[in-house]
Amino acid sequence: MILVLKPGAPEQQKQELIRHIEGMGLRIHESVGEGTTILGLVGDTSRIDSYIFSSYEIVKNVLRVSEPFKRANRMFKPDDTVIDVCGRKIGQGYFVVISGPCSVESEEQIVGIARELKKAGASFLRGGAYKPRTSPYSFQGLGLEGLDYLKIAKQETGLPIVSEIMSTDVLDRFIEDVDIIQVGARNMQNFVLLKELGRTNKPVLLKRGLSATIEEWLMSAEYILSEGNENVILCERGIRTFENYTRNTLDLSSVLAVKRLSHLPVIVDPSHGTGRYWMVEPMSKAAVTLGADGVIIEVHNNPKFALSDGEQSITPKKYAHILPALRKYCEIENKKLEA
Amino acid sequence: MILVLKPGAPEQQKQELIRHIEGMGLRIHESVGEGTTILGLVGDTSRIDSYIFSSYEIVKNVLRVSEPFKRANRMFKPDDTVIDVCGRKIGQGYFVVISGPCSVESEEQIVGIARELKKAGASFLRGGAYKPRTSPYSFQGLGLEGLDYLKIAKQETGLPIVSEIMSTDVLDRFIEDVDIIQVGARNMQNFVLLKELGRTNKPVLLKRGLSATIEEWLMSAEYILSEGNENVILCERGIRTFENYTRNTLDLSSVLAVKRLSHLPVIVDPSHGTGRYWMVEPMSKAAVTLGADGVIIEVHNNPKFALSDGEQSITPKKYAHILPALRKYCEIENKKLEA
Amino acid sequence: MILVLKPGAPEQQKQELIRHIEGMGLRIHESVGEGTTILGLVGDTSRIDSYIFSSYEIVKNVLRVSEPFKRANRMFKPDDTVIDVCGRKIGQGYFVVISGPCSVESEEQIVGIARELKKAGASFLRGGAYKPRTSPYSFQGLGLEGLDYLKIAKQETGLPIVSEIMSTDVLDRFIEDVDIIQVGARNMQNFVLLKELGRTNKPVLLKRGLSATIEEWLMSAEYILSEGNENVILCERGIRTFENYTRNTLDLSSVLAVKRLSHLPVIVDPSHGTGRYWMVEPMSKAAVTLGADGVIIEVHNNPKFALSDGEQSITPKKYAHILPALRKYCEIENKKLEA
Amino acid sequence: MILVLKPGAPEQQKQELIRHIEGMGLRIHESVGEGTTILGLVGDTSRIDSYIFSSYEIVKNVLRVSEPFKRANRMFKPDDTVIDVCGRKIGQGYFVVISGPCSVESEEQIVGIARELKKAGASFLRGGAYKPRTSPYSFQGLGLEGLDYLKIAKQETGLPIVSEIMSTDVLDRFIEDVDIIQVGARNMQNFVLLKELGRTNKPVLLKRGLSATIEEWLMSAEYILSEGNENVILCERGIRTFENYTRNTLDLSSVLAVKRLSHLPVIVDPSHGTGRYWMVEPMSKAAVTLGADGVIIEVHNNPKFALSDGEQSITPKKYAHILPALRKYCEIENKKLEA
Repeated sequence: MILVLKPGAPEQQKQELIRHIEGMGLRIHESVGEGTTILGLVGDTSRIDSYIFSSYEIVKNVLRVSEPFKRANRMFKPDDTVIDVCGRKIGQGYFVVISGPCSVESEEQIVGIARELKKAGASFLRGGAYKPRTSPYSFQGLGLEGLDYLKIAKQETGLPIVSEIMSTDVLDRFIEDVDIIQVGARNMQNFVLLKELGRTNKPVLLKRGLSATIEEWLMSAEYILSEGNENVILCERGIRTFENYTRNTLDLSSVLAVKRLSHLPVIVDPSHGTGRYWMVEPMSKAAVTLGADGVIIEVHNNPKFALSDGEQSITPKKYAHILPALRKYCEIENKKLEA
Repeated sequence: MILVLKPGAPEQQKQELIRHIEGMGLRIHESVGEGTTILGLVGDTSRIDSYIFSSYEIVKNVLRVSEPFKRANRMFKPDDTVIDVCGRKIGQGYFVVISGPCSVESEEQIVGIARELKKAGASFLRGGAYKPRTSPYSFQGLGLEGLDYLKIAKQETGLPIVSEIMSTDVLDRFIEDVDIIQVGARNMQNFVLLKELGRTNKPVLLKRGLSATIEEWLMSAEYILSEGNENVILCERGIRTFENYTRNTLDLSSVLAVKRLSHLPVIVDPSHGTGRYWMVEPMSKAAVTLGADGVIIEVHNNPKFALSDGEQSITPKKYAHILPALRKYCEIENKKLEA
Repeated sequence: MILVLKPGAPEQQKQELIRHIEGMGLRIHESVGEGTTILGLVGDTSRIDSYIFSSYEIVKNVLRVSEPFKRANRMFKPDDTVIDVCGRKIGQGYFVVISGPCSVESEEQIVGIARELKKAGASFLRGGAYKPRTSPYSFQGLGLEGLDYLKIAKQETGLPIVSEIMSTDVLDRFIEDVDIIQVGARNMQNFVLLKELGRTNKPVLLKRGLSATIEEWLMSAEYILSEGNENVILCERGIRTFENYTRNTLDLSSVLAVKRLSHLPVIVDPSHGTGRYWMVEPMSKAAVTLGADGVIIEVHNNPKFALSDGEQSITPKKYAHILPALRKYCEIENKKLEA
Repeated sequence: MILVLKPGAPEQQKQELIRHIEGMGLRIHESVGEGTTILGLVGDTSRIDSYIFSSYEIVKNVLRVSEPFKRANRMFKPDDTVIDVCGRKIGQGYFVVISGPCSVESEEQIVGIARELKKAGASFLRGGAYKPRTSPYSFQGLGLEGLDYLKIAKQETGLPIVSEIMSTDVLDRFIEDVDIIQVGARNMQNFVLLKELGRTNKPVLLKRGLSATIEEWLMSAEYILSEGNENVILCERGIRTFENYTRNTLDLSSVLAVKRLSHLPVIVDPSHGTGRYWMVEPMSKAAVTLGADGVIIEVHNNPKFALSDGEQSITPKKYAHILPALRKYCEIENKKLEA
């Protein structure tokens, strides 16, 4: 951490600041330039809130030198993290396709879709039992009943289950019934939830927040990791921009950034990321090309009658065409598509 | 809701769409223009997800005509909502000043600050027992111990308490000990939490999300209102923009917008909204001028040693100068400053 | 400027970098921390592009310590700049009201409005002869004919003229006919235009760009100042955010920021900044409260038939009510409303 | 265009509005719902500013039904536009690689780079003679001297030239010396410049503005097309978001959107779009995968000493490795790489 002092900072105030810093167990490198004095703080500054120093009148600027995330940092763990879920590997040379409807609507619906996905070669079944909806009047999901149906679909097809959790009170059921617990974009900074998930060893799929930076996203992963759970999978799902032709702007460069900054696997959600069903296939191919570790694709038997997110869903029939295409692109990139 | 059809939409597909709409209990007004056909949906469309229709190939555009919020809507309740908390009124002709440190750090600290605030004329005492922090390594608040200290401060000064809740598992304690429960920006779309708060009749201070639109903010208020709790106070706390000289961009025009769209009281947080202590006083005055129903001002006995958000805090001494200034501006606007 | 080196940077590469820096006439302060080495660059770095150093593999981060603007900086000139235009002062203790229609539509229209503005007590007449429009099919302004009508309006009323320039080929006519030349938000980074304006000594009203930071805005002012023209007036006109209830988000805190960072006067445009005519009066009052040096208010004799921006215009009748209100608020703030 | 009226709109005001609309030569379809009345405007509304109607008190909302761009619209011209520049085709089944340094720095530099690019298989040589820089103290380009050097480089290598224009006063020289005239992001809405370029028949490379929507970008293309010049090439170069790990956020989905909305070719600039040299190759491959018609890649012989944008440049040596990779990806997508 670096503190830039204002020109002409009174010596007495500077000494007060220096005592404050040293009282925190840090050492100081002072560098006096033309008009500007710079204090370099040496020691573990990761627990220090940079705002503390900004309240000093003589401090002009506080600059962070090192990334605030530790366990998520590739410097902490140079090798790629590979997570094994029911025999499917996520990370490094593997590629997973997680598919299913936005919401579980009935046993018939989810089992029917799961069978078609299995046949087409999906790696995981996803389905929402709890749905975060902007409006209280929209369909909110079937709740625990939805989890029951997902379990039946898993029994029928062998596909492991990915489903979103919205609060800690149902955590036990999720640990028992779900194979990967998803944290949605709106809960990326629900720190109580993240900490609780960190105390389990269940794989967590952490979606990027609606307008979160990559650093904030990795800090949320850090919440889970710092409690002891190392099974974190990141998921780029688009960020909010001024463009409204697409529902969000899918930031494919974040795949490259995350791979450099962190050892964690990262997958891409082109369905929520674009909100346009006809963009799902090309954006999925591009995700493979860029080295993503997987994609989440929304599939619904009848998108027009879907209780949520119909616009971005594709039919099982179309899905059966997409999967071979993805397999081809995985081969080009020397990735193994897990199924 | 209006559906714009693509030019040359086949009659058969149009009929299928019309049957779908009518099956939802809605009537249709069809309007045929040059090349474009428009279907106006008549009936209660508030429960209908507009994405459903977007998945029809022949639908070019889905446009909402009416606001999706009902109970928060001024059309639903033309008169301003006034909320009485321990004898202090919030809304309409009243103005409240909620003040205190970002975090409760010790009994001594919070009681000391509370006494100075009381003397200066504050309406409410705020203090964080639970703190949402971007980093797991930052100070996370004293938890229930913090609530205990707040209660002592209330006993000593009579100032009612405002404090932030982060999860439902401590809701009972908050209902008992806190006078206004705050929902932070990061939890504005924590729908499980909002619903639970809606089932109480405790006043809720709902902060605007980091990059939330006014409509999304009012939809989150709707979550609380729709469960039966009518005591919702909105709080503008700045939105994320490309400007980083200020911590956020305080959107003062949202006060005017909320007043027109809704009957709910709205207050302004210039401390988080700017992140600069020297902007707090002028922005507070501007909030009065614009008709806000109150402000939240961060006050810390020693901002330099604050465990969080020191940069935006002001000292009790400075605070004692701000309050008379606000009183003067309240008089100009015919507002009564509650204390 | 500070360069943060990656941990374990090879000595040879570091020496190469140091030679490069010294070859630019700068000196270096080296500070070696735990794992991190920091190079502080001492000397005039304002001409140096920070991207140069980022291309060194061993450089992790480049941090700017000082503001890149010089002549616009309050440190360069501590006293407020006051600009005199036809006897009206702009800056410090003065407040100006610039008003008129978005576009000049006819002689009759502009002269008619000008008379009413004069009567109500306006300081300046504004009117667009050239209009930057998103669509080539929208009304583009009357061009030089519009300038002619503005001159007539000035002769009739004595109100000095503010009008927007869009290209350098009409600069001579603007210098002759216009009293303050406006640079619109879309041209804030039209550097060729800024430089040309810098070579005149005509007052320039520089609008903030649609998504410009305050620093970028001041750098555009710097383009004008650096060529020798010191008569720059900044104008906050709202920035693009995700909020679309208002046309833009008027960033009133930028008035405070500019006043601290720079000596230049800053005025506020609530008409473009909100796009809502009923927000103009309260936002103007708030601008006075915050210490702005003036406002621009769009006035049109018949907003419904305005050829551009009708929604945000107010009628002369309503205007005649706003001005006394502004005068009252100026008195409260000890500002003299110039007329 | 659709006007949504407020509930209970007085009949007299409605009739006044209807007369206004009919006076513009439009017909009206009226649709009366529960509480809401909707007026559908039939006829050519492309020249009508939607703000006009918003100033009516009884109008709640104005909704556009059709895209405001005409000649850029794929509905206007269903087949892909293919532009031939010196025998290289741009659009449809072809793929071009435009490369070179950000700035022309000397004859030696540009000729040297051009030779290496030619050898590696580039399609076009780019180089900036005029540089839009945020700071007036940064290198501004060699101007016409730079164009001279580019011409020499073209003579030596046969590579056609792409260079950025910043103002109309040098348009004649650009028409003579340059093969594709580039309009930079900051000038995307410099409408005077766009119109002038529209009056030539020179190919124009139109970069997307810093925070422009796709619709605004296509409207800027419309400015050129509406004056008669049909040779417009769009260029996605990243948009401003809250993410600052990358210089901009390259919106690769815009390639898919533009292809659907328009017939114009669209290329991608991964150098400016990411600001990270090591992202250039993977993002270029992804651009091929998504159907882009080309890429612009910044190449500099010595990025560390580049006078601008060193961080995002790659060396000719690295470039010689990228081109074969791109050729391979073009083959997969059945694109012909033009050289």
